[in-house]
Amino acid sequence: MHVRDYKNAAERRKALEAFLHISLPHIGSFTLSEEMAATRHTENMVGATQIPLGVAGPLPLHIENREEEYMLPLATTEGALVASVNRGVKAIRDSGGATVSAFGFGATRGIVFHIDGVREGEAFAQFVYTNKAQLNTVAQQTSHHIALMEVTVKTVGRFVFVRLSFDTQDAMGMNMVTIAAEAIAQEITKKTHARLIAIAGNYDVDKKPSWLNFIRGRGWEVRADIVLSEEVLRNVLKTTAKDMYEVWLAKCMVGSALSGSMGFNAHYANIIAALFLATGQDPAHVVEGSLGITTAEIQGNDLYISVYLPDVMLGTVGGGTELATQQEALYILGIVGGNSGKNAKEFAGIVGGTVLAGEVSLLASLASNTLACAHKTLARKKL
Amino acid sequence: MHVRDYKNAAERRKALEAFLHISLPHIGSFTLSEEMAATRHTENMVGATQIPLGVAGPLPLHIENREEEYMLPLATTEGALVASVNRGVKAIRDSGGATVSAFGFGATRGIVFHIDGVREGEAFAQFVYTNKAQLNTVAQQTSHHIALMEVTVKTVGRFVFVRLSFDTQDAMGMNMVTIAAEAIAQEITKKTHARLIAIAGNYDVDKKPSWLNFIRGRGWEVRADIVLSEEVLRNVLKTTAKDMYEVWLAKCMVGSALSGSMGFNAHYANIIAALFLATGQDPAHVVEGSLGITTAEIQGNDLYISVYLPDVMLGTVGGGTELATQQEALYILGIVGGNSGKNAKEFAGIVGGTVLAGEVSLLASLASNTLACAHKTLARKKL
Amino acid sequence: MHVRDYKNAAERRKALEAFLHISLPHIGSFTLSEEMAATRHTENMVGATQIPLGVAGPLPLHIENREEEYMLPLATTEGALVASVNRGVKAIRDSGGATVSAFGFGATRGIVFHIDGVREGEAFAQFVYTNKAQLNTVAQQTSHHIALMEVTVKTVGRFVFVRLSFDTQDAMGMNMVTIAAEAIAQEITKKTHARLIAIAGNYDVDKKPSWLNFIRGRGWEVRADIVLSEEVLRNVLKTTAKDMYEVWLAKCMVGSALSGSMGFNAHYANIIAALFLATGQDPAHVVEGSLGITTAEIQGNDLYISVYLPDVMLGTVGGGTELATQQEALYILGIVGGNSGKNAKEFAGIVGGTVLAGEVSLLASLASNTLACAHKTLARKKL
Amino acid sequence: MHVRDYKNAAERRKALEAFLHISLPHIGSFTLSEEMAATRHTENMVGATQIPLGVAGPLPLHIENREEEYMLPLATTEGALVASVNRGVKAIRDSGGATVSAFGFGATRGIVFHIDGVREGEAFAQFVYTNKAQLNTVAQQTSHHIALMEVTVKTVGRFVFVRLSFDTQDAMGMNMVTIAAEAIAQEITKKTHARLIAIAGNYDVDKKPSWLNFIRGRGWEVRADIVLSEEVLRNVLKTTAKDMYEVWLAKCMVGSALSGSMGFNAHYANIIAALFLATGQDPAHVVEGSLGITTAEIQGNDLYISVYLPDVMLGTVGGGTELATQQEALYILGIVGGNSGKNAKEFAGIVGGTVLAGEVSLLASLASNTLACAHKTLARKKL
Repeated sequence: MHVRDYKNAAERRKALEAFLHISLPHIGSFTLSEEMAATRHTENMVGATQIPLGVAGPLPLHIENREEEYMLPLATTEGALVASVNRGVKAIRDSGGATVSAFGFGATRGIVFHIDGVREGEAFAQFVYTNKAQLNTVAQQTSHHIALMEVTVKTVGRFVFVRLSFDTQDAMGMNMVTIAAEAIAQEITKKTHARLIAIAGNYDVDKKPSWLNFIRGRGWEVRADIVLSEEVLRNVLKTTAKDMYEVWLAKCMVGSALSGSMGFNAHYANIIAALFLATGQDPAHVVEGSLGITTAEIQGNDLYISVYLPDVMLGTVGGGTELATQQEALYILGIVGGNSGKNAKEFAGIVGGTVLAGEVSLLASLASNTLACAHKTLARKKL
Repeated sequence: MHVRDYKNAAERRKALEAFLHISLPHIGSFTLSEEMAATRHTENMVGATQIPLGVAGPLPLHIENREEEYMLPLATTEGALVASVNRGVKAIRDSGGATVSAFGFGATRGIVFHIDGVREGEAFAQFVYTNKAQLNTVAQQTSHHIALMEVTVKTVGRFVFVRLSFDTQDAMGMNMVTIAAEAIAQEITKKTHARLIAIAGNYDVDKKPSWLNFIRGRGWEVRADIVLSEEVLRNVLKTTAKDMYEVWLAKCMVGSALSGSMGFNAHYANIIAALFLATGQDPAHVVEGSLGITTAEIQGNDLYISVYLPDVMLGTVGGGTELATQQEALYILGIVGGNSGKNAKEFAGIVGGTVLAGEVSLLASLASNTLACAHKTLARKKL
Repeated sequence: MHVRDYKNAAERRKALEAFLHISLPHIGSFTLSEEMAATRHTENMVGATQIPLGVAGPLPLHIENREEEYMLPLATTEGALVASVNRGVKAIRDSGGATVSAFGFGATRGIVFHIDGVREGEAFAQFVYTNKAQLNTVAQQTSHHIALMEVTVKTVGRFVFVRLSFDTQDAMGMNMVTIAAEAIAQEITKKTHARLIAIAGNYDVDKKPSWLNFIRGRGWEVRADIVLSEEVLRNVLKTTAKDMYEVWLAKCMVGSALSGSMGFNAHYANIIAALFLATGQDPAHVVEGSLGITTAEIQGNDLYISVYLPDVMLGTVGGGTELATQQEALYILGIVGGNSGKNAKEFAGIVGGTVLAGEVSLLASLASNTLACAHKTLARKKL
Repeated sequence: MHVRDYKNAAERRKALEAFLHISLPHIGSFTLSEEMAATRHTENMVGATQIPLGVAGPLPLHIENREEEYMLPLATTEGALVASVNRGVKAIRDSGGATVSAFGFGATRGIVFHIDGVREGEAFAQFVYTNKAQLNTVAQQTSHHIALMEVTVKTVGRFVFVRLSFDTQDAMGMNMVTIAAEAIAQEITKKTHARLIAIAGNYDVDKKPSWLNFIRGRGWEVRADIVLSEEVLRNVLKTTAKDMYEVWLAKCMVGSALSGSMGFNAHYANIIAALFLATGQDPAHVVEGSLGITTAEIQGNDLYISVYLPDVMLGTVGGGTELATQQEALYILGIVGGNSGKNAKEFAGIVGGTVLAGEVSLLASLASNTLACAHKTLARKKL
């Protein structure tokens, strides 16, 4: 069959069903706007995939000098995940709320050009650094919602890489950034002897785990922390500061070091994935969200615990956030649409708090050795 | 509100709507079985998230000495992705089909114990290696669908890590593996002086990007390759072997090296994410699927291109694959349910072929510099 | 001048002095055998570089179920290094001696071949794994002191890498291994369709920091540990268990994680460099010796501390060990010449103990904040 | 024996000889000043280690808009290395000389402090960034030869890391930098609530391979390139552009990617080690010098080749450069002593050119498959 030869999802689905001798009633049952989805979010549409959506909360956060509470929409197919996050949320709530902090490094694109070599590389770098303001002007002609924050030039032989970092306000922004980067690339090729190879040269780095993003930051750099009291550790988390600390040290520090991991944490990716799916973020950005460091410190009988995520790409406008169920999830969080970058920043803070809840709960489970038990209960349920 | 105090999704959703003064009609519209989803796939369920589902194909593959064609279900909210994969599929189809290969390294769990130090570590390692058969027996008492493939012991100070690799047939298997690991951990603590710290000590490594998985393999190690003819390069991909090769070298090799990336590829994560969401895989495993190396070689005017993914976690039974829309997507692929590991292996091969299609198309786009154009068209559509 | 046109070091040195209008009396003053050095250790010889040699010790070690004491020859130009190691040695001595352990992973070479692609890669791997015994026979025809321990085949597109690991007894062995690898490469190209690209394809990995070596091991995998008593911590190291532990955690764990470092330690490279230079090892192997993990654990008021080095390349025969001053340094250690691999293994254990002494002393210095003071004293001495 | 109980090297050596029943005549034969070496470069001195010194050259370089020729002092015990570099030098000379470029990122120290958590981290970072000028003043009170170039603050939980980068003119500078960092650390603890943990927190990163240094630069960032003509490739290097390119791609790109290596090159460490030993640099800095990327490009029948080293720590004053043989080696290079940073920069350029010669020669050897032959000849010589 030729998947492009059908005028809408229903016809294409029927043809697919006939071609494969199967039936797809559930995929065909959806309420999101086909008109929007089929033109802006996918092609060759046949329907929709349904992901169960649970909620955790309310999660109290100290955020931007305010106190807020959030209900957390989590789309997942992994049994026990929402319950686990919710236990972490309760531990945080009973400990007075977590403190979160978010800093925007901007969406990046890393163009790669071809030059003659080392000597030309010096002149090229000088041109780019000297004309940063002009390049920003070029970028802003492609969108009013974009501003060039930082430029880095790096020459390796005849390849020269230009990493552009843009403020994209409340949008995750990769589409805008790609268009702006292309305009800048044209400007640069016009004014220098460099020849454009590709506007995305893995010096962004988009959707791959990379030390560049870990060290320089990309999207939002997020932190969250909390002191869990002895009582919360005992009653809510069924563990002690000492046991939980030991698990953290063995797993997030020594185990990650031994494994050559970029994730010095328990399971950031699980929480990022569930939040991202619910709110229409790009699921390939879970890769970047998996990076980061969890720390712990014993304080008497209490436990300080923190998360650090240097590379969180997200938005509250554009892309998948426009879809109906995803919009509703953003309404649950109270951060729908554009707001001069404030919504994205608030969202980044919420991500930090939720990831912290996930770390608290899983590390406690491991410390009290209930992880396998939880899975066994679940397995029995499945029989 | 207390999210656990409601007897079903509808009541919980209503309470949430009242609590937040919002309305969630789309989240409330779902056809998947709440009875199943709310007990096995999520907690505190309020409904479902809908992700647009498109198809690409048919993709012809040389797989296990057979020739097969596949229609590819891709759940995504990123406009242009399905169209891009489908262009890659056409290029592969017009070039006679891709060759794929999959090798199972098994699902892993990395237990961490506490010991006295270096000297005890030697005895501990000897115990584990000597008693591998007995540990397998212990594991198989927890499930008939599991077999211990490999054990690695690594001592670092007073921490000793035991990486267990299991054949889990057609299941992704992390739940089974966790339960088996716990039984093995108990056996080991009974027979040695080691004390269990945690059954998951980041020596798995689950859901974090890691060199351990890249180098030793985890889940499925997948390869796919194809020779694209000059004609296909010109007519379908609008580029040439030389241009596409240069983009590959600059981006996937030099750019990735310069960035400290574990992804020496164009965008594996995008394709893995779309296939995984459609078929009920764990989206946090997109992190591991983003690892790998794309290679290219000019052959006259043709271009050889290959993908290598060392760390693909997937299954055709269990977890999210049981859900209605996800089951249907597996029907589209023709690999539903358990089949002595053959379905999972076939799925791994399909992942390889689809990822190859994605690489072919994006590298060609970059080579012909149409990426920004595609996004601009899309952006205009959005206005 | 043409550096090769002179019949000995003295004439070449004179020509160089005349050519550059300088005088090189010290370089010309050496006692090592020019006949040997100029034919086997360098070319275009003009003399020798003198590196100051200090000693630390005696260092008591529990090694291979024996108790031994070692005087440690350390060649260095870094003031305070020998004194610092010697302080660590004293702390170890006053704590009853360190326990060391060494495991040989063998010297490796990673050949790279060209093949047709994924399908041929499967047949190629099967050929190599099936014929491992035959490949060992081929290797042993090149040297009686070599045995093939392990083979790993990894295909990436049209490149297939074969990592060969050899037992080279007491030699570091890279020359032997290269010759054996070349014989094996010829055998493989004779029996398969693969074409040899290079016998050293960075899948060894020789003299570069790599996760492959960290995770799979290369040369010797070395461990050492000790419990430092409260008294030793206070009297010898001028610190406490708590302070030293905090420095370790902040520096070797969190700092290294944040920096994307392969060295989760304080300064392995310093100690490896000084021992390697003194004993005629290859100084480029300091790169590999810099990898590894230091751990610490508070035990009441005492401190457990350990080192783990997965990639230590060394030997007691061949290469620079043959030179006069280097031989004497090996005599100081009591491990001169070949001894069926036992000397190399003992040396590996000594390296572990000495590196541990270095870590103990530097972490204590940092904890008591005397590092800058030490350097200031030194700086004053220099005036 | 107590190694510190002797008044000079001769007495200590005699005691050591007596204690171990050995004799150390060669170690005892040295011409460098014991008075200087025993107070500034080592402790517990017993003599000196002699390393054979060869020369290669002259190497013509385009450096800082000048044309210069250099004789290269190389201290090594690895037979064939000097000859190999000299062949690369000849290839470069016959191709008209290499172009080199060096950029100073400064010597760095990464202090780590303890703070209360995320919220205090924000205030702390603001304090440091706001008071950069004042911190520079503090640093300059410790030395006139130092200037604070850049500061980076990074908070992870209760640990906050401050990376200070200093211009240290012609000195490698770690001692100066450590003293300055200590003064800055005292200033910061006085003015904030932070508590100093350690003035060296592995956020420097000193003497460990790290992505932080690779990505942000440390010491000198060095580049060199050349176009090798078909004639030079055939006559001097016994290979072709195509063969040498294939080896480069397979080894430095794909092989390094597959191995998780930070060295995307053939053998930078060998050349760095030989130059560093000859000139009195710190051999532990070979670790950092091993990082970097070699690139190649076919240009008709010629071959463009380049090296990129982001992390080269070196100096022409202080430390081991003061010793007699090392001083003479610097005279051979023509860059003795301090010269407002110009000597260090010139040295960095020379390192680039020499490393390029090393890469050219080894890649050519591998391409013509003569590496094992060279070693076999050498092995025969040794019999």
